[in-house]
Amino acid sequence: MRILILNGPNLGLLGKREPEKYGTASLKDIQLHLKKKFTRVKFTFVQSNIEGEMVDRLNQAMGKKYDGVVINPGAYGHYSYAIRDAVAALTVPVVEVHLTNVHAREEFRRHSVIAPVCNGVVAGLGPISYELAVRFLLENK
Amino acid sequence: MRILILNGPNLGLLGKREPEKYGTASLKDIQLHLKKKFTRVKFTFVQSNIEGEMVDRLNQAMGKKYDGVVINPGAYGHYSYAIRDAVAALTVPVVEVHLTNVHAREEFRRHSVIAPVCNGVVAGLGPISYELAVRFLLENK
Amino acid sequence: MRILILNGPNLGLLGKREPEKYGTASLKDIQLHLKKKFTRVKFTFVQSNIEGEMVDRLNQAMGKKYDGVVINPGAYGHYSYAIRDAVAALTVPVVEVHLTNVHAREEFRRHSVIAPVCNGVVAGLGPISYELAVRFLLENK
Amino acid sequence: MRILILNGPNLGLLGKREPEKYGTASLKDIQLHLKKKFTRVKFTFVQSNIEGEMVDRLNQAMGKKYDGVVINPGAYGHYSYAIRDAVAALTVPVVEVHLTNVHAREEFRRHSVIAPVCNGVVAGLGPISYELAVRFLLENK
Amino acid sequence: MRILILNGPNLGLLGKREPEKYGTASLKDIQLHLKKKFTRVKFTFVQSNIEGEMVDRLNQAMGKKYDGVVINPGAYGHYSYAIRDAVAALTVPVVEVHLTNVHAREEFRRHSVIAPVCNGVVAGLGPISYELAVRFLLENK
Amino acid sequence: MRILILNGPNLGLLGKREPEKYGTASLKDIQLHLKKKFTRVKFTFVQSNIEGEMVDRLNQAMGKKYDGVVINPGAYGHYSYAIRDAVAALTVPVVEVHLTNVHAREEFRRHSVIAPVCNGVVAGLGPISYELAVRFLLENK
Amino acid sequence: MRILILNGPNLGLLGKREPEKYGTASLKDIQLHLKKKFTRVKFTFVQSNIEGEMVDRLNQAMGKKYDGVVINPGAYGHYSYAIRDAVAALTVPVVEVHLTNVHAREEFRRHSVIAPVCNGVVAGLGPISYELAVRFLLENK
Amino acid sequence: MRILILNGPNLGLLGKREPEKYGTASLKDIQLHLKKKFTRVKFTFVQSNIEGEMVDRLNQAMGKKYDGVVINPGAYGHYSYAIRDAVAALTVPVVEVHLTNVHAREEFRRHSVIAPVCNGVVAGLGPISYELAVRFLLENK
Amino acid sequence: MRILILNGPNLGLLGKREPEKYGTASLKDIQLHLKKKFTRVKFTFVQSNIEGEMVDRLNQAMGKKYDGVVINPGAYGHYSYAIRDAVAALTVPVVEVHLTNVHAREEFRRHSVIAPVCNGVVAGLGPISYELAVRFLLENK
Amino acid sequence: MRILILNGPNLGLLGKREPEKYGTASLKDIQLHLKKKFTRVKFTFVQSNIEGEMVDRLNQAMGKKYDGVVINPGAYGHYSYAIRDAVAALTVPVVEVHLTNVHAREEFRRHSVIAPVCNGVVAGLGPISYELAVRFLLENK
Amino acid sequence: MRILILNGPNLGLLGKREPEKYGTASLKDIQLHLKKKFTRVKFTFVQSNIEGEMVDRLNQAMGKKYDGVVINPGAYGHYSYAIRDAVAALTVPVVEVHLTNVHAREEFRRHSVIAPVCNGVVAGLGPISYELAVRFLLENK
Amino acid sequence: MRILILNGPNLGLLGKREPEKYGTASLKDIQLHLKKKFTRVKFTFVQSNIEGEMVDRLNQAMGKKYDGVVINPGAYGHYSYAIRDAVAALTVPVVEVHLTNVHAREEFRRHSVIAPVCNGVVAGLGPISYELAVRFLLENK
Repeated sequence: MRILILNGPNLGLLGKREPEKYGTASLKDIQLHLKKKFTRVKFTFVQSNIEGEMVDRLNQAMGKKYDGVVINPGAYGHYSYAIRDAVAALTVPVVEVHLTNVHAREEFRRHSVIAPVCNGVVAGLGPISYELAVRFLLENK
Repeated sequence: MRILILNGPNLGLLGKREPEKYGTASLKDIQLHLKKKFTRVKFTFVQSNIEGEMVDRLNQAMGKKYDGVVINPGAYGHYSYAIRDAVAALTVPVVEVHLTNVHAREEFRRHSVIAPVCNGVVAGLGPISYELAVRFLLENK
Repeated sequence: MRILILNGPNLGLLGKREPEKYGTASLKDIQLHLKKKFTRVKFTFVQSNIEGEMVDRLNQAMGKKYDGVVINPGAYGHYSYAIRDAVAALTVPVVEVHLTNVHAREEFRRHSVIAPVCNGVVAGLGPISYELAVRFLLENK
Repeated sequence: MRILILNGPNLGLLGKREPEKYGTASLKDIQLHLKKKFTRVKFTFVQSNIEGEMVDRLNQAMGKKYDGVVINPGAYGHYSYAIRDAVAALTVPVVEVHLTNVHAREEFRRHSVIAPVCNGVVAGLGPISYELAVRFLLENK
Repeated sequence: MRILILNGPNLGLLGKREPEKYGTASLKDIQLHLKKKFTRVKFTFVQSNIEGEMVDRLNQAMGKKYDGVVINPGAYGHYSYAIRDAVAALTVPVVEVHLTNVHAREEFRRHSVIAPVCNGVVAGLGPISYELAVRFLLENK
Repeated sequence: MRILILNGPNLGLLGKREPEKYGTASLKDIQLHLKKKFTRVKFTFVQSNIEGEMVDRLNQAMGKKYDGVVINPGAYGHYSYAIRDAVAALTVPVVEVHLTNVHAREEFRRHSVIAPVCNGVVAGLGPISYELAVRFLLENK
Repeated sequence: MRILILNGPNLGLLGKREPEKYGTASLKDIQLHLKKKFTRVKFTFVQSNIEGEMVDRLNQAMGKKYDGVVINPGAYGHYSYAIRDAVAALTVPVVEVHLTNVHAREEFRRHSVIAPVCNGVVAGLGPISYELAVRFLLENK
Repeated sequence: MRILILNGPNLGLLGKREPEKYGTASLKDIQLHLKKKFTRVKFTFVQSNIEGEMVDRLNQAMGKKYDGVVINPGAYGHYSYAIRDAVAALTVPVVEVHLTNVHAREEFRRHSVIAPVCNGVVAGLGPISYELAVRFLLENK
Repeated sequence: MRILILNGPNLGLLGKREPEKYGTASLKDIQLHLKKKFTRVKFTFVQSNIEGEMVDRLNQAMGKKYDGVVINPGAYGHYSYAIRDAVAALTVPVVEVHLTNVHAREEFRRHSVIAPVCNGVVAGLGPISYELAVRFLLENK
Repeated sequence: MRILILNGPNLGLLGKREPEKYGTASLKDIQLHLKKKFTRVKFTFVQSNIEGEMVDRLNQAMGKKYDGVVINPGAYGHYSYAIRDAVAALTVPVVEVHLTNVHAREEFRRHSVIAPVCNGVVAGLGPISYELAVRFLLENK
Repeated sequence: MRILILNGPNLGLLGKREPEKYGTASLKDIQLHLKKKFTRVKFTFVQSNIEGEMVDRLNQAMGKKYDGVVINPGAYGHYSYAIRDAVAALTVPVVEVHLTNVHAREEFRRHSVIAPVCNGVVAGLGPISYELAVRFLLENK
Repeated sequence: MRILILNGPNLGLLGKREPEKYGTASLKDIQLHLKKKFTRVKFTFVQSNIEGEMVDRLNQAMGKKYDGVVINPGAYGHYSYAIRDAVAALTVPVVEVHLTNVHAREEFRRHSVIAPVCNGVVAGLGPISYELAVRFLLENK
């Protein structure tokens, strides 16, 4: 099983940025945890602040390169129809994750333009969100 | 660990109702699966079509009776401020789950009035949604 | 032919409540009229103020217990997505009726969240509305 | 009893136009059915694609020429305040009918500007809709 | 001075239609009054229920045929962008009149799509509205 | 004087639930206070989490059983058109009360669908709100 | 006949302020014109930039002091519910006037909160607007 | 106890203005009633039609001059953010009162921009509203 | 190849009406240009100001009379659901054209209710728009 | 250089009112600071709680009395079209200032109806805002 | 003639991505077709998933490098005000093209923020859209 | 003092692009002016058309690299929640600047999603805007 874990803007700051909100685990920590937890999965970890690079990565994923995608689009989730189209073009399952409970924050965070073309969403469950998303991909294989 | 699994309206029909949308697993099947998977958890399973009965159950949960709650509010999730208030009154963690990807269906299903007072949401991942929610409660203990 | 006539909140007051708006016929009167008019139909008459009980009744109707349903959801028609889901789960024809012309009253009464999953609607034609709805079910058999 | 059956734009195509949606009965068929069913009623059948001609006809109906009106305004029902005013000027009962369940189609079809000034509405019950509307006019005489 | 007095849908009913709202003066009465009051003005009186015929008349007015236009668009005033375009194409002054105070009636009557391309509006002053509009055209000559 | 004090969802938690917001007085405390304060009033105290049961109680109040009603609809106040209709059917005076200042909280709490059919509203004045409402009923007798 | 001509904020600048929009006539000019035109009318001319002073003046008008009022509320017309209430309290006829065609300017100018409680509106016809409004009051006496 | 009773625009007309809506008691009557009822309270009664004067009065109240404020902002309650800011700057309790049930009248009256910064609201209970508001201030002392 | 070129309201004024906006070519010029450019196409040119006549023409086109339709609905494009339904009933390709860039003008012009049921749209490219639309029909044959 | 510094409602409370939000500097302090900082500027300082008085002052500024205006409209900035019109009538540069970051507070504070007719806005930079605004006027001289 | 053909996000997938919607022609195919069809035009073909790179390219086009631009902004068309500004800065003609009929898809696709600053739009005509846009540029030279 | 001056999309065109709107000063000119004016400040000037690169720069600023940030987000200011999040993550003061008065242009420019997480905004004051923003950072040090 090959899984792409695609993280969007500002997620490189995890652990340093507003830790009372986003927790103290860095993106590196989360990635190590996933590798340890799912030793049989071949992960590709990507973080980019650039919307179009995220689209690039998703476009490259079209050629059956991955068996599933976990995407934390960060703030792009609220308006990037470009990423939405890129996700919609995929045929493998895609799960959107958010570390924080986006429904309990500013109004604009309650709406994801990407969620409608994903299989589902895990939101607000902290770093475990990634693990749960991967678990879904494994069970749905 | 004691967990309340609270299911709302029409969820008693699971397995029979539009299986191409909601899957073929009945609520019973899901409950058995959870029991088998988490043998050390003491589950209380409740399904009710009556909004006020769901509020009753959540009110009763206030006295430290449970360590966590998984709620699938069904359609009530879109307008029941009464259930929202009952969830907000709790101090244990609460996870909202939806079997289907509510973001990919009718517009009114995209909005949950309960999510803002939960810890997080798992949506669209089918019967596994319940399992992932329980897993979060266990890890967050 | 077996038909469920399901009436929602405050309809038990018919005849007593604002008769200049809702007429002087009681629910009992309407039921007697229907029985007399359609002697070959086996009617089940239910009135409940409780949203979830209406869902219960519709859920029970799934097992081919009725050949058609006439529902006057009362005020629940304007916001009960729970009843909507219960109606959507049925495979027999369902007609929504309203005694008064909901389009000529307060703005919120112009919108029914149930109508989109019914076969059709008869509104504003007084007690005859029920009779016309039954007639449709008979001709559509 | 004299009844005007007034049909609006595109209804002349009935039977030919998207039959899976509008059915296979032509407007002629419906008219014959009504005549046969209600032999004591004197019907006037009018179909026009021109909004102002429909207003003309309704204006002419003011002089006690008819005892009731059944109007299928077609798409004009969603925006013709001119027809609304013409209906409002009448003193005989008027019923709006729609062959299809307008509530289950595009959003713009859910709203009728004419319904508030009619006695009531029959929608979604196919060609029988006309028959039910006439029956109401007869019983309300 | 040549002035076109253009009246829209249902205005042929004036005097007969809801006299408590629209008054007892017929369109004929108003026209006679205008003729008597302004003997040196050459009036052309047109009433049509057909939106496109009103456009026709306004299109014909382009060739310097009139020195001013008074238009009571009736209900078309609230949605006829076709009439709006026809008025906008004129170079002579145009005044929109309404017999009733449209601001004190239904919400939809408060908005005129034609007013922005007229010189001004006289609304709610009854049959005198026409006289005042003509007076403006005369003084603005 | 007989007065019905009708309390809605989650109000049974008063004193225990978020006391910094709702105060430390239980519903029992409030009731005792009212009884002591107004010894000549015959109170009926009802609390229910079930919307339809609140409708039931209001329906039963139709037969001149009470001389006035004080209703704290809790969260149902924001969407229960069913309770609104039940209140509207009453002929005795009805006062809506809220313990907290609903205007200073979430947006959805600013709107009551029940208030338009009550005599008036007392909001934000804590447990005294009930006392003031009763006082109004007494003076208005 | 005694008429109050009440002018609101910034109208003291007439003639000096954006003359290409508001014309070159000063408020004084308009008043002289009215006096000359209607020699038998006893005019009271008031201009105030202060909303509450306009309310004061209208309140004073209650005691049958005037036979009619012409009000140009200026920008207050778009939001002063206080002036609206003061106008609504009057029993003599009131006409709202605007020098410019408010419908052809910024969106916020298209809406008057005062118009619904006036008898009618004259807008966009320049200084003549006042004259036409007075004429209506005279003919309606 | 020193209490400021601050009344806004058009309230000087009480008793004379639309008595079927606002009652026959004048502001004077209400003030006398309050003085008689609460002999130990030192009242300051102010009525002003001028928004800024109401702000002046509230600003002056900052220096611990009063122990509480009852404000009937009249129509300013619907849009005066200036008064809102003045109320928010106070540290003594403030109660907003309305004589009529603002929720049962025009849509714009349902929203108060001042209520969110008051302690609470009493609306629709007629002249007694003032008495109840004072009573709250006394009990909350 | 037989193509219907259907032009809506005010398009008969082309060349005369606001030439800086709509250009100096008359409808006649455009038609001659098309005939010369596409000698093998059999064109039917229709212009009507009457919405219902446009519906008539489109209804007549149902019987395989044309191989394609180019429609410039003029202002009707923004609200005529009647024309929309008539276009939707066709099975031959239909292209909507606008001479001006409707997206760069008034807000109401940005929305076409007809476009969703056409094959596509050419807007803002002047008289060439027609030519390009025809070219599409030819290549798509 | 002569500059009018015009302050609106509640700004007389500066230093006393919610200092954690508005700072501890009084309006007097700010004025002294400006005088000291810009010794060659002749300042006129005005503070008024009355909307119409602010309009008065701006109207008086028309006669070339000042070379520039700095306006802190306070809460009036969010709805005073009267002040907007008064500013628009000026020909000297006008800068709107706000002490606090209005974009980071309640939704209604994000919108200024005055800003569109000013040269620009300085918001959220505390008492320095005034200094920066004056500096702009000086450099733009 | 030098023309820039600028393609936005996900358009590199053409031919592979949902071919039933976007057709089987790849971007390469379209480019070859254009080159063959217009041999005298010097094309520059650019495709980028990165919004800012598209802005870069348009910025570079300012120096009279091209005689016209054809832009298919993909999903960026619905929200990229940055690209809009870049297009607005150009002085050569620009045509927006869409392969699919954006008006017949999701609501958000109906709105282009770029169209208002282009010369016009060609939408829904498949790969031919590009050809028609180029043809316009040639004829408009 | 080290200050980052971050400029967004199309700002590289300054001086060349619509000079009547944006002025004739190039970005280079503005930078030279700032350096000359504030010789003791160490400036870092960045301009990028790529949203994600702006996020990159702001992310790098987290490590106490700068003492303040001046950001002109260009069009990204209206929708880039990604840049908003990057600004919110900073702990040094940030000022948003706009050369033009965004409140006086298209509606979409009136709203900045970044402003709420900045210290304040300077808008519409031309190239001086940067200088004023820097001055604030210096005084707030």
